[in-house]
Amino acid sequence: MARRLELHPDRLFPADPTTRRIARDLYSGVADAPIVSPHGHTDAGWFAGNQPWTDATSLLLAPDHYLYRMLYSQGIALDALAIPDKGGVPATDPRAAWALFAANYHLFRGTPSRLWLDHVFAEVFGFDVALEPSSADLYFDTIAEKLATDAFRPRALFDRFRIDFLATTEGAQDDLGAHHRIRESGWNGRVVTTYRPDGVVDVEHEAFVPAMTRFAELTGEDVYDWRGYLAAHRKRRADFRAAGATATDHGHPTAATANLSTAECETLFAKVTRGDWTPADAELFRAQMLTEMAGMSAEDGMVMQIHPGSFRNHNAGLFASHGRDKGADIPTRTDYVHALKPLLDRHGNSTDLSIILFTLDESTYARELAPLAGHYPCLKLGPSWWFHDSPEGMRRFREATTETAGFYNTVGFNDDTRAFLSIPARHDVARRVDCGFLAQLVVEHRIADWEAADLAHELTSGLVRRAYRIDQPSPLAAAA
Amino acid sequence: MARRLELHPDRLFPADPTTRRIARDLYSGVADAPIVSPHGHTDAGWFAGNQPWTDATSLLLAPDHYLYRMLYSQGIALDALAIPDKGGVPATDPRAAWALFAANYHLFRGTPSRLWLDHVFAEVFGFDVALEPSSADLYFDTIAEKLATDAFRPRALFDRFRIDFLATTEGAQDDLGAHHRIRESGWNGRVVTTYRPDGVVDVEHEAFVPAMTRFAELTGEDVYDWRGYLAAHRKRRADFRAAGATATDHGHPTAATANLSTAECETLFAKVTRGDWTPADAELFRAQMLTEMAGMSAEDGMVMQIHPGSFRNHNAGLFASHGRDKGADIPTRTDYVHALKPLLDRHGNSTDLSIILFTLDESTYARELAPLAGHYPCLKLGPSWWFHDSPEGMRRFREATTETAGFYNTVGFNDDTRAFLSIPARHDVARRVDCGFLAQLVVEHRIADWEAADLAHELTSGLVRRAYRIDQPSPLAAAA
Amino acid sequence: MARRLELHPDRLFPADPTTRRIARDLYSGVADAPIVSPHGHTDAGWFAGNQPWTDATSLLLAPDHYLYRMLYSQGIALDALAIPDKGGVPATDPRAAWALFAANYHLFRGTPSRLWLDHVFAEVFGFDVALEPSSADLYFDTIAEKLATDAFRPRALFDRFRIDFLATTEGAQDDLGAHHRIRESGWNGRVVTTYRPDGVVDVEHEAFVPAMTRFAELTGEDVYDWRGYLAAHRKRRADFRAAGATATDHGHPTAATANLSTAECETLFAKVTRGDWTPADAELFRAQMLTEMAGMSAEDGMVMQIHPGSFRNHNAGLFASHGRDKGADIPTRTDYVHALKPLLDRHGNSTDLSIILFTLDESTYARELAPLAGHYPCLKLGPSWWFHDSPEGMRRFREATTETAGFYNTVGFNDDTRAFLSIPARHDVARRVDCGFLAQLVVEHRIADWEAADLAHELTSGLVRRAYRIDQPSPLAAAA
Repeated sequence: MARRLELHPDRLFPADPTTRRIARDLYSGVADAPIVSPHGHTDAGWFAGNQPWTDATSLLLAPDHYLYRMLYSQGIALDALAIPDKGGVPATDPRAAWALFAANYHLFRGTPSRLWLDHVFAEVFGFDVALEPSSADLYFDTIAEKLATDAFRPRALFDRFRIDFLATTEGAQDDLGAHHRIRESGWNGRVVTTYRPDGVVDVEHEAFVPAMTRFAELTGEDVYDWRGYLAAHRKRRADFRAAGATATDHGHPTAATANLSTAECETLFAKVTRGDWTPADAELFRAQMLTEMAGMSAEDGMVMQIHPGSFRNHNAGLFASHGRDKGADIPTRTDYVHALKPLLDRHGNSTDLSIILFTLDESTYARELAPLAGHYPCLKLGPSWWFHDSPEGMRRFREATTETAGFYNTVGFNDDTRAFLSIPARHDVARRVDCGFLAQLVVEHRIADWEAADLAHELTSGLVRRAYRIDQPSPLAAAA
Repeated sequence: MARRLELHPDRLFPADPTTRRIARDLYSGVADAPIVSPHGHTDAGWFAGNQPWTDATSLLLAPDHYLYRMLYSQGIALDALAIPDKGGVPATDPRAAWALFAANYHLFRGTPSRLWLDHVFAEVFGFDVALEPSSADLYFDTIAEKLATDAFRPRALFDRFRIDFLATTEGAQDDLGAHHRIRESGWNGRVVTTYRPDGVVDVEHEAFVPAMTRFAELTGEDVYDWRGYLAAHRKRRADFRAAGATATDHGHPTAATANLSTAECETLFAKVTRGDWTPADAELFRAQMLTEMAGMSAEDGMVMQIHPGSFRNHNAGLFASHGRDKGADIPTRTDYVHALKPLLDRHGNSTDLSIILFTLDESTYARELAPLAGHYPCLKLGPSWWFHDSPEGMRRFREATTETAGFYNTVGFNDDTRAFLSIPARHDVARRVDCGFLAQLVVEHRIADWEAADLAHELTSGLVRRAYRIDQPSPLAAAA
Repeated sequence: MARRLELHPDRLFPADPTTRRIARDLYSGVADAPIVSPHGHTDAGWFAGNQPWTDATSLLLAPDHYLYRMLYSQGIALDALAIPDKGGVPATDPRAAWALFAANYHLFRGTPSRLWLDHVFAEVFGFDVALEPSSADLYFDTIAEKLATDAFRPRALFDRFRIDFLATTEGAQDDLGAHHRIRESGWNGRVVTTYRPDGVVDVEHEAFVPAMTRFAELTGEDVYDWRGYLAAHRKRRADFRAAGATATDHGHPTAATANLSTAECETLFAKVTRGDWTPADAELFRAQMLTEMAGMSAEDGMVMQIHPGSFRNHNAGLFASHGRDKGADIPTRTDYVHALKPLLDRHGNSTDLSIILFTLDESTYARELAPLAGHYPCLKLGPSWWFHDSPEGMRRFREATTETAGFYNTVGFNDDTRAFLSIPARHDVARRVDCGFLAQLVVEHRIADWEAADLAHELTSGLVRRAYRIDQPSPLAAAA
C-alpha cells in the first residue's frame, strides 16, 4: 500500500520556532493573493481552444525537461518516457512511461520538481497517497478521469488558480493567432503575449531563414534591409502590444551588447543576413540588437527582459536525434559589467527604459548584478532563474542581492514554466521562501515586523505589477 | 505620528536561542572595546580644524554614495539630493533633499546602510522615532542643533566613539598638511595617514600629469626618470611614516603584478610617462609598481593593502556630468592566482613583508584567497569589503575563508568609510556578526567556549593591531 | 594543566533542537557503517609490510600538507617542523617539531584539520586532554608507546577502523609491487589500486621522461609510437584491474578535453614526445588523453575520475628548495561546460561509461556541474574536494548541487587522504554533515523522515559502492 501524501502547512519555513511563527504569519497574509505570472511558456492555444488534456504522461511528463533530464541522467532512455524525437512521439504506451516515472520518483528527492509535483498531485488532483510503483496506475487513471471533466479544462483551471495575469512568449514570426482567438472568444482571462525576437536576431539558429521569411510576410517590410528590418521590429512590437504584451524577452548566449554606428550596423547586417558570417559576427549582431531593442523599449515602453548565459543543446548526439529543448541546456559563466556597458552608455540613465536582468551564474548576484541594479535607474533584477528557481536558489538570491540592491530593485516572482498545472505550486514555493527570508530579518531585528508584512505584499504583488507595467493603460485597454 | 526607533540589544544574533545566548555572551566581552580603524576615508581636515558640521544633508547624505546610488537607481535625480556635479553643489534646499531621502528610506530595508543609519540616529543623535516623512523636519532640525554644540565637533565625537587608532588615506601628491596640523595642535587622538600612490601610478587617471608635477615638487626628484621616480616614492613613504602611517594602499582595476627587469622597467616607464601608451602598457605598469611597492614594504615595514577589482566610473553619462565617485563603481571578476604570481615569485617567502588582500569577487574567497593566505607567509586576508561589508557579506566571508585560512590569517575589521559618524555602527555590526559566527561554531562543538571568547578578542583587537603593526615602534614614536 | 579533550556526541549537528534530534537519529543509523574509501593516497606499502610507525611528528605532522601549510603561512620555517626538503629530512628533533606544532595548535581553530586531529587524538589514541604546550610531551611519548604495539600496526588499525574497501593511487609507471605483496600475504583487507596515468600524460611534469622509460619497460610496448603508447595504457589498465582497481584518476590543470582525429593525434604525440612542444601543445595532449581514457573506460568498465583545477607548486622558491606537494597548490577558476564538450560529443551518451567530476571551484557546483550531471548519463559528481572537504564545504556542496542533480548523481564520500589515521574522522564528519543536511530537509518538510533515513544509507554506502562499481565481479575476484 502506498504511503500517504500530505503537504505540511509549515513546509519550507525555517526550523527555528520563533522564525517559523513569523514566517507563517507573513505567509498567511499573501498565501491567497492572486497570481501574477509575467514571464512563462504556457501554450496560448490551450486558452484559445480550451480543449481538455488527456493523460498524465503527455500533460505532466513529456513536456517537462526538468523531469526527463533527471531520468535520462540515470540512464533511462527518452523513448521509454514517450519523449518525442525528430521522428515524432515514439510508440511508447503512456501508462508504461508513467509507471517508469513512478518507479524512479525517488530520484527527485531534494529537488524543486518534487515539491511542485507533490503540490500538483495533492492540490490540483486531490491525491492523498504518494506516487510510487504501487500507486502509478491509480495516478494514471485518476488523472485521466479528472482531465476529461470540464473542471480541468484550461480556462477552468486558470480561474481556479486565481491567475490575474499570465504572459506567454511568442516569436517575432508568430501571427499571435491564439491570442487573437482568446480575445475574440470573449473570455476575460488576462493572457497576454511577450515579444521574443530571438528567432530573427540569432543568425546561428537553424531556423533563422524561414523565421525571416515569415517576419517579412507579417510586416510587409524589406527585412533584408537594415532600415526595413528595424521597421519590421517596430511593427511587430506594436502588434504584440495590441495583443496585451507589456514586455519583450531576449535569450542570448551571453549578455554582450554593442553600440555601433548606423554605417557599421548596415555593414554587419548585410554580412550576417547573406550568410557570410563568423561566430563573432553573429555574436556582435545579437549584441547590437540588444541595444536596438533597448532603444525601442525606451520609445514604446515595453519592459525588456534579458536572459543570457545558457549553452543551448550542449549534447550533440541528443540534438541530432531529438532536436532542441531536451534538457541539455547548460549554464555558463556570464559577464555583465563589461557586456552591458555599450547599451548602458547609450541608454543607461533613461528613466523610461526598464530592463530586467536574469542570470544562471549566481556568482554575479552580489558581484555584478546587485551593484548594477543598485545604481542604474533602468536596471532591475529578475528573480532566481531556471536551475535556481528553487528553495535554496531563491534563498541565495535574496541573501546575495538584498544588501546591495535592496528589495525594490527586484521584480517579484516569475514561474517561467510550460507546466501550467504547476504554476500555483511554484508561486507558493516562492511566497514561502520569501516569507522565511523576511522572518529571518525580523528575528535578527534587521527590519520591523510591519515592514516585513509590507515587503511580503510587495514581493508577491506590488513589485511585479509595477516592474512589468501591467496596470499601466495599454493599447489594448485604450482600444477596448 | 512617526513610529518608534529602537535598537534591539540582540540585533544580528542568530535566531536559535542557545546560539543567541552564546553570541550575546561573546559580544558582551567585546562590545565596549576601543575602536581600531586601520583603513578608511575620513577627512583628516576634520580633526585638524575641529570645525562643526552644519546639517544632516551635507554631513550624512551628500557624501555617502551608498545612499544616493540606491536613490538614483530608483529614478531620483542627484540634483534633488544636493549631490555636487562638476559645476559644484546644486542649488537644492538641504531640508528638501533630506525630506526626499526620508520619503524613500524604505528603499534601504534589508541593507547595511539602514543598520548603520539607525545606529547613528539612535546612538549618536538620540532619536527615538524612526526616520519617515512625518519626522523628516524633526530630524533635520535636531541634527542641526546638535551639530552646533561642542559635543558634536569632530574631536569630541572621536573621543566619545572611543577610537584608539584611525587611519585616513592620502595620495602620494598630498602634502599631509592636515596631519601635520593635527600633530602641531597637541591633540592626542591617534589619526594617521596611509600611503596611496595610485594617482602617480595609474597613467589612465585623468589627473595623472598634475599629480606627477606635485609629486616632483614635494620630493625634489626627477620623477620622469625611473630611478628618480622610485626615489620619490621612497621619500614620500618616509614622509608618510613620519606622519604615523603604518600602511600603504593600492586600488587597481585588477590584481595583476609583474616582475620585469630594470631595463624593461625603464623602457615601460619612459613609454607610459611620455603619454604614448596602450591600455595594456598602463596595466603592465600598474602591475610592475605593485611589485616595486612590495619590495619597498619589505624594506621599510609598511603593510601593503591591495584593493583590486572595481570597474570605476562605469556610468559614462554620469562621469561626464558629475565626475568620479558617484556610486557607479561596479565590481568585476578578479583573478589572484595568476595575477599575484610575479610578485610572489619575487617576495612571497619574505617574513618581513605583509600584504593584505581584499576582493569584491566573493567567488575567490574559498577558491583563491584562503588557499593563498593559508600558505604564503606574506599574505593575509582583509575583511569583506565595500558591497560585502554587511551582515550576509561578513558571514559569507567567515564561512568561506575560515576552514582553509583559519582566523589568524585575517586582520579584523575595516570600516573603510568616509561617513565618520557611522564608524561605531559599522564596528558594532562586525562584532555582532563575528560573535554570531563564533557562537555557531561553539554550539556545533567545533570550538570550545573559551576559544570563542579568545577569538572574539582577537577579531576585535588583537589581529588588527598586529596585522597593521600599530603597536610597533614607529618613526613618529621614536621622534617623540 | 592541560584542558580536557572531549568529542561531543552532537558535534556538527544543526543548532535548532528539533533539527538536531532528527540529525542525531539519522546519524545513529549510519555511524557504525563500514568505511568505503574509493579514492585516497595512503601508502600501499604500509599494508604490504605492516611495519609499525614510529612517532607523532613523522606520522601525523610531516606528511600532512594541510598542517604545515598553515604553520608556514604564519612564518614558521618548514625545517623547524621536520619537513623534508630536496636534501632529505632536516636534522630537526621530532619532539621539538611536535612541541612547535602544539604551541601553534590554536591556528587550526575553525578548520577541518582541527576536527580530524582531535578525533584521532581522542578516538585512536585515547587522549582526554587537549593538545597544547603543556601536553606536547605527553602526546609525543604516548603516541610513540602506542605505535610500538601490535594494535597500532597498519593492518590492525585497518580492521579496527572497519574499513571495507580502500583504494590507493599509483602511477602508470608503478609496478604495483606493494599491492602484489598484499595479495600474496594472504591478508584479507581489501586494499586496491587506482590507475593514475598523469606521469606519462603530462609532458610538463619534470619526471615525464623517466616515467615513460619505466612505462615502456613495464609494458614492452614502443611507447613513443602513438599506437604503442595507447596499447601500453591498455596493458597497464589491465594490470591495475588485476590488482583490484575499479577506477582511474586524472589530475589535470584544467578540465580541457579534445576530440582529434587519429592523424592529428599522431602528429601531436610526435611533437610532445620529442620535447618540441609549447604549453598549448602540452595542454592539448592532456585534453586528448582524457578523451582516450574515456574511450578505454567505456571498453573496460573502469570508472574515470577527473580532478582538475589545481595550480600545482605555485610557490617558485619553495618548489626550488623543497620540490612538489608542499602545500603550495592553489585552486583556479575552472570551466567544465566548454572544456568537457569534445569528450562528451564522443562518449557523453554512453551508459557504460562513468565519469566522476571533481572541482576546486565551487562557483561551478550549481552553474555547471549539477546541470551537467543532471543530464548526461555518463557524468556523476564527486564529493566536495580538498579545501572544500570540510563542514562548510560539504554543506555548500549539498545546497548547491542537490536541487539540480539530486542525490543520486552524487557518489558518497571520498577521504582523499594520505593521513591514514584520520580516515575514520573524515568519514565521521561527512556522515554528520550529511545527516544534518537531510535533517534540515525533513524539518522543512521537503522530504519525509523515512526518505531521509534511506538517503543517509545511500550517502554512506549505497552510492559509493555502485558509483565505484566495487561490488561488480572484478578480474581479481574472477581469478580467485
